[in-house]
Amino acid sequence: MQFAISEDFLDKIIGLIEREDRAELTIILQDLHFADIAEIIDELNLEQAVFLVKLLDSEKTSEALMELDEDQRDRVLNALSPKEIAGELGEMDTDDAADILNDLPDDVAQEVINQMEDEQHIEDIVDLLRYDENSAGGLMAKELVKVNENWTVTGCVSEMRAQAENVTRVHSIYVVDNGNKLKGRLSLKDLLTSSESTPIKEVYIPKVDKVNVNTTGEEVARIMRKYDLEAIPVVDELDRLVGRITIDDIVDFITEEAEKDYQLASGISQDVEANDSIWDLTKARLPWLVLGLVGGIGAAAIMGRFEHMIAEHAILFLFTPLIAAMAGNVGVQSSAIIVQGIANDDLKGSIGNRLLKEVLLAMLNGFILAILLFAYTFITEGGILTASAISVSLFAVIIVAGLIGTFVPLFLHKRGIDPALATGPFITTSNDIFGILIYFMIAKTIIGI
Amino acid sequence: MQFAISEDFLDKIIGLIEREDRAELTIILQDLHFADIAEIIDELNLEQAVFLVKLLDSEKTSEALMELDEDQRDRVLNALSPKEIAGELGEMDTDDAADILNDLPDDVAQEVINQMEDEQHIEDIVDLLRYDENSAGGLMAKELVKVNENWTVTGCVSEMRAQAENVTRVHSIYVVDNGNKLKGRLSLKDLLTSSESTPIKEVYIPKVDKVNVNTTGEEVARIMRKYDLEAIPVVDELDRLVGRITIDDIVDFITEEAEKDYQLASGISQDVEANDSIWDLTKARLPWLVLGLVGGIGAAAIMGRFEHMIAEHAILFLFTPLIAAMAGNVGVQSSAIIVQGIANDDLKGSIGNRLLKEVLLAMLNGFILAILLFAYTFITEGGILTASAISVSLFAVIIVAGLIGTFVPLFLHKRGIDPALATGPFITTSNDIFGILIYFMIAKTIIGI
Repeated sequence: MQFAISEDFLDKIIGLIEREDRAELTIILQDLHFADIAEIIDELNLEQAVFLVKLLDSEKTSEALMELDEDQRDRVLNALSPKEIAGELGEMDTDDAADILNDLPDDVAQEVINQMEDEQHIEDIVDLLRYDENSAGGLMAKELVKVNENWTVTGCVSEMRAQAENVTRVHSIYVVDNGNKLKGRLSLKDLLTSSESTPIKEVYIPKVDKVNVNTTGEEVARIMRKYDLEAIPVVDELDRLVGRITIDDIVDFITEEAEKDYQLASGISQDVEANDSIWDLTKARLPWLVLGLVGGIGAAAIMGRFEHMIAEHAILFLFTPLIAAMAGNVGVQSSAIIVQGIANDDLKGSIGNRLLKEVLLAMLNGFILAILLFAYTFITEGGILTASAISVSLFAVIIVAGLIGTFVPLFLHKRGIDPALATGPFITTSNDIFGILIYFMIAKTIIGI
Repeated sequence: MQFAISEDFLDKIIGLIEREDRAELTIILQDLHFADIAEIIDELNLEQAVFLVKLLDSEKTSEALMELDEDQRDRVLNALSPKEIAGELGEMDTDDAADILNDLPDDVAQEVINQMEDEQHIEDIVDLLRYDENSAGGLMAKELVKVNENWTVTGCVSEMRAQAENVTRVHSIYVVDNGNKLKGRLSLKDLLTSSESTPIKEVYIPKVDKVNVNTTGEEVARIMRKYDLEAIPVVDELDRLVGRITIDDIVDFITEEAEKDYQLASGISQDVEANDSIWDLTKARLPWLVLGLVGGIGAAAIMGRFEHMIAEHAILFLFTPLIAAMAGNVGVQSSAIIVQGIANDDLKGSIGNRLLKEVLLAMLNGFILAILLFAYTFITEGGILTASAISVSLFAVIIVAGLIGTFVPLFLHKRGIDPALATGPFITTSNDIFGILIYFMIAKTIIGI
């Protein structure tokens, strides 16, 4: 079993495209999984990619399009006519088609909709367009298998067969009443193990997990993870069944969220990848670096106010990078724990308790580190006063840094702002400034200048 | 629909436990999902938790045990007798039971195995114990539905029904030959839409994604994500079907990996949560802080070697926190992009090309930042020589920091070490030291002391 495209195979495909050998390409690619075809298209230049998309069946390319790197997909779609895009969308699941339409310019999207043929499919897709992308409505697909509670098992098998043709994977069969209200579900396992003459009303499971169209993506992910669900039905405000969300979409959602948080913690502000252009990478990285530069200038300005001490107490200045680094490290540790706790929805207790715990934790860490630093400075530099000044300041800086790292994400979250913004460079930079200010103020007091 | 336990409900449960009202508790809890029961047990003290676990059916508690916070689970298991643990394990899926046994002390595990009753179940579990936890063998469960290629659809329905009783979710029906070699699969959809008299040999899909018992967890996750799989069969070296991995286990695996990487990038070395004890949190955080302290002391020592310049060029010392911060930020940005690229397996090109790209990127960012810093220092401090010295050094430091941030994770990965170790405090600390060294060396050369 091979789960990746080899260089040789890719070269062969490129050669065939250059020679426009349509027959051979069709034969080679017809058995390939759409995810592999996507991997190939990602490696091609635009002209080659468009050639391949136009050559292959929409059934195959539509699914491959969804797996493409976003930039490459935008370029390919840009090179297709509205009619060709409509052809691809006709083969897609409604949720994927809606995502594509959402990304197109309004006039192109309208033209594509006009070109589509299957009325029901268009209606479903347009219906999905009105939901926020990050809500259950925006994540769901219209494809599902449902039966009426008033049917019998025998009576609904043919109906289900017809519906199943349009659904890639059947997870559950949803049971609705005459008004399309969700009543319960019928598992395939039940179907497998129950007799065909039974009326649906008697066999369906009335307890069914469901979410509302307005439930956020994060909440849907949490629920599906918590209850190990592989699909969840989505209902509207009147409890009518309008769609379902499958776990593969949630896996993508979870992965993207985790990557976004990781990047924010690392000072990268957009969804970029190692293979993106230098320009895209710069756009994602430079703003945080400028923030760091401004913070560093602020720190230099603060140190400048204590410059009169530099001749006699040069040692204080030698330890400023240490103070800044420790303030940054402690702040990032605290904020990361809080951001993760918020994301997993398992923070317990009030903000006050949380800050108290962080103070205790910072005091413990700070005490150990301050002792170590005191020992080092006392032995190497001599002078109990200087050693005390530096280590007591470190102790204080660690506590303040921990508090800032804890408070800021909690505060942002309360205000409805993504707390992950407060990790990484943001905390590091603000803690640098506060840390150095506190450091010099305490050191000055202790040394008594 | 309610997807979380309210405070009031929890208080009620605790009250009933204190009064030992077994009858009422059983009634209230019998309809609750095991994930909700786990959420309740997580909130109880040990005595209350054990009371509840002993009270409820093993069928319910065994699944709840798997959803518990790991620390709480260990405590609860510790309070149960081997016979009671055996009872719980008897109701668990084989993969979960094997995970529990793996975490128990060897002698307790042996005692539990001796107490178990279902021979086949024990055999399956013990079989799973020999695989590495992070391999497909360690992730798979023995529960699956399989049919022989020589049967007919009609002939195997009853067989499948019997097997399905032991499998929580039927994803695919696997087709094997007489020697248990995996031949293909039969989707439930096919079953739904094909006639009962057809022989299996004619309807099964011979193309089936599969992994070997030794495939790593990361690779399994990548394959299941890439191909949107909900379950994947696992075969041994002789291509015999030995188990299957379901997507819910992979969702947990992906989430845990992402959290681990996030924590490493934030300077937290173990799998801790905001609610863990201060002692656990200190153990996870202190080592990285000590590393930062040592780095800071190193930076101070380097600066000490240039102390003779401090009287005349105090300004150089004021900017050391800025230089250290920028070196750290750039390093973390570079390493995070590389670590994520490695995790997603989409790094293209050689290490040389990667480093060249990083140099170009760092030059672009560094040039912009150096110009800004030059302007600031020139205007506020005067002196073209000093302003040049500081800004040229910044430019050089950014390039070196980017190279270190790129090279170290790539190097660790080549050596088979988790590259995520090289993010966060590790990169920050080493970049602080290198940054300050380079800064003073360049500044000294330019100013000409």
